Amino acid sequence: MHGIRRALRRGFSVKIFENSVDAVEDIRNGSRIAIGGYGACGVPENSIRALHNLGTYDLTAYTATTGVLGWGLDLLIRNKQIKRLITSHSGFNTTFNKQYMAGEVELELIPEGSLAARLYAGGAGIPAIYTKTGVGTVVEEGQFPIKYMPGGHGVEIYSGAKEKRRFRSQDTLMEEGITTEYSLIKAWKGDTKGNLVFRRTAANFNTTMAQCARVTIAEVEQIVPEGELDPDDIHVPAVYVHRLFKGEFYEKPIEHLTLLSESNKLSSRHTTDLAHKLRIARRAAKEIEAGMTVHLGLGIAGLIAHIVDPKLGVMFHSNSGAMGVGDYPKSGLEDADVINSSRETVTLLNGASCFSSNESMDIVRGGHVDLNIISGFQVSQYGDLANWYLPGKFAPSIGANMDVVSSEKTKNIVTMMHTMQSAPKIVKECTLPLTGKKCVHMLITEKGVFDFTRENTLTLVEIAKDVRLNEIREVTGCNFNIASDLKPMD
Amino acid sequence: MHGIRRALRRGFSVKIFENSVDAVEDIRNGSRIAIGGYGACGVPENSIRALHNLGTYDLTAYTATTGVLGWGLDLLIRNKQIKRLITSHSGFNTTFNKQYMAGEVELELIPEGSLAARLYAGGAGIPAIYTKTGVGTVVEEGQFPIKYMPGGHGVEIYSGAKEKRRFRSQDTLMEEGITTEYSLIKAWKGDTKGNLVFRRTAANFNTTMAQCARVTIAEVEQIVPEGELDPDDIHVPAVYVHRLFKGEFYEKPIEHLTLLSESNKLSSRHTTDLAHKLRIARRAAKEIEAGMTVHLGLGIAGLIAHIVDPKLGVMFHSNSGAMGVGDYPKSGLEDADVINSSRETVTLLNGASCFSSNESMDIVRGGHVDLNIISGFQVSQYGDLANWYLPGKFAPSIGANMDVVSSEKTKNIVTMMHTMQSAPKIVKECTLPLTGKKCVHMLITEKGVFDFTRENTLTLVEIAKDVRLNEIREVTGCNFNIASDLKPMD
Repeated sequence: MHGIRRALRRGFSVKIFENSVDAVEDIRNGSRIAIGGYGACGVPENSIRALHNLGTYDLTAYTATTGVLGWGLDLLIRNKQIKRLITSHSGFNTTFNKQYMAGEVELELIPEGSLAARLYAGGAGIPAIYTKTGVGTVVEEGQFPIKYMPGGHGVEIYSGAKEKRRFRSQDTLMEEGITTEYSLIKAWKGDTKGNLVFRRTAANFNTTMAQCARVTIAEVEQIVPEGELDPDDIHVPAVYVHRLFKGEFYEKPIEHLTLLSESNKLSSRHTTDLAHKLRIARRAAKEIEAGMTVHLGLGIAGLIAHIVDPKLGVMFHSNSGAMGVGDYPKSGLEDADVINSSRETVTLLNGASCFSSNESMDIVRGGHVDLNIISGFQVSQYGDLANWYLPGKFAPSIGANMDVVSSEKTKNIVTMMHTMQSAPKIVKECTLPLTGKKCVHMLITEKGVFDFTRENTLTLVEIAKDVRLNEIREVTGCNFNIASDLKPMD
Repeated sequence: MHGIRRALRRGFSVKIFENSVDAVEDIRNGSRIAIGGYGACGVPENSIRALHNLGTYDLTAYTATTGVLGWGLDLLIRNKQIKRLITSHSGFNTTFNKQYMAGEVELELIPEGSLAARLYAGGAGIPAIYTKTGVGTVVEEGQFPIKYMPGGHGVEIYSGAKEKRRFRSQDTLMEEGITTEYSLIKAWKGDTKGNLVFRRTAANFNTTMAQCARVTIAEVEQIVPEGELDPDDIHVPAVYVHRLFKGEFYEKPIEHLTLLSESNKLSSRHTTDLAHKLRIARRAAKEIEAGMTVHLGLGIAGLIAHIVDPKLGVMFHSNSGAMGVGDYPKSGLEDADVINSSRETVTLLNGASCFSSNESMDIVRGGHVDLNIISGFQVSQYGDLANWYLPGKFAPSIGANMDVVSSEKTKNIVTMMHTMQSAPKIVKECTLPLTGKKCVHMLITEKGVFDFTRENTLTLVEIAKDVRLNEIREVTGCNFNIASDLKPMD
């Protein structure tokens, strides 16, 4: 090994660049690039704009989400500069989804925690890790269409199966570390040495992507002299940062503006079936005990931070990278740097902390939260869960769902409407791609509450006051037990 | 998996305890405990004192170092409360070493980066990782004596061999995640919610040990109300912390007080052969270019931060958890929370950053530093290095040495005296246990400079002015080439 593998072409000191074009113009067509951001939060918008203007193409891009339309990563997608996107959430971008279905772009879907862990491992000189995330799903089995044939007829490239290995009676999958040629990241402040500081949930994937690249290009809102940042407050040490520039212009759009009205009522989103959704959320909230740490997933779960009495001291975790998420903000107090997993504007409670997406995923995968409250498309009688792909309606978007249900230490409560367009969502066997097997402990719909832990059988334990038992039977796709002590759902 | 594996016995909210005894008294004999700290820095001294007073025994303890005599972990060692110590540095504690050699205590030696990574993985729900650290050494091969027979005659327990696997033409070892029943950690400040903040290099293993335990017990110098710590400045989110108390008393001793005299001269340590050691350090310093990031190991390397012109903007990395280590402090400016890898008091330069030991090891293992300057006991003609175990003189202490040389991206310069008690240290084959194979690129002694990269052969490229070639031949244990352009060592 006497040769040193890296001819140190990138130079030693961090280079301060004048502008975004200077910083990214040597990126060649065909490069592998990690791009920070989560939704519209913490996105290296200036670097992306420059790359768009330069027209660099055939890019392999690693990114948490596909962001918002007409801005950020979407500029590169629209302009067909991306050859392959490796992401957790592709579902939000209609342009991308059309290109994908037409066989114009490749998609590698990776669970959010596995993506973060793989980027982390790559940067840390760890060639592979094992994780429980994705066991029993398409992630393990492969055969996910990475690329459709031109025109969308048939599949040209499928994903491969993962190597499986058992540790202490738990199945796990091997996931390999990822290194990239470049990372484009965005921080709040950088010092002239290259040390970076993030603001709130804008850290997300930027932290870890700083570490995985041969050349890390950081854009910041402010450059400060070295010595101004306290050594204890630095999120990314300068050793990881090779180029730095002050972004020319920050739009920092808000993807989902969610506000409280003057009367503390929800004023936007969540309007369809709001009464039913609130009923579900209120029932789920009853499972929360004082002082608990609770992970809130997408959809109905997002309403729970609005419902639970702050006096209970509950800490809500959001995989946008925060613990201690509060209610939606009042108008004028929204902050583009403070979002939840659904990419809605939220507030932070006293005692909140913000951290990277990698740490966020370590928290759920490591089983450090007491309760997960998550969404569902289908739940089987065995407690299998499908909640990431609804063909025809919702593009594939694994997100953090598989990571969240991967820990055997945390109780999983699924909150969902009982049916979808009259079709049962509680079924014998899930027909939609799975998120996890036998992972649901409790299921709450607008019609009742089911328990999966009583004798390992699906058991109706509570029934909504306006619902008759037969009505539930009619809209449930499988048999279920009825608890001898069936209670009204309150 | 419908049962949830953890009956949540530890409670939800962080509990604020009145004192150290209350916080640790339920720890049973035979428990597995991670104990934070590096040398005398960031040590949970109050928890340890309480455990010592309670007399809890048969403990399996995970710790970075064995600390200093008569204080901290040594209280438990002396009192024979430890059954097995899992550590990177056992060499510093003479009491422990006597017990170990007499078969009274078990020792599992793990490279510092692998220990950090295993604790990290355990906390993050990752059952195993692969690492290049330790390939070709006793870590891979096993047969390290974990326990000697009573009286020290023969070996009762040997370490096992590690599973090896090749990734992209690099051999790696599988290392399993570690979880513990308890962690005792020490932070600077904690808020009433349980969020923690560290000061300078006192973070070290405390950060990662907060994550690996079923019950994490944190002691702090100050408790502040929730909301007082900025969410962006929190090092350990409250979700990891189950018990918190304000330490009754902090001694915070300094292990190696290293000071600059008024005239900026070194006033302590490094007195033996100081002139020769400074010659070696000065020559090594010439390899450092402006803006480089350089890892400094133990011994002679520690002198280099004292030598290099601060104007060069070089950032020195220390595996005590800092980037940007400066010179030794002047008297009165020493800070028990600011130490280097040799556990000497140092200063931090403008632009410095402090981080956990896990991040520190990710930085070296990931190949993010440009240059490693490290110590050596033996270097073979092939560039093999032995620098962690000198039987009879220096107890086994792998430290971070194997992690530091594990990256193929970083140049390794060994600085050492040419001989030890007249015996050659440059040899045909290392007879001491290896740190790494074929990992040395350059070797600097007080007599000359050797290059290992020219035609993959040991080549003398510089010779000290007061030394003749024959003299080098006589004290070198193997043949070497002489560069056609042999230069004076300056």
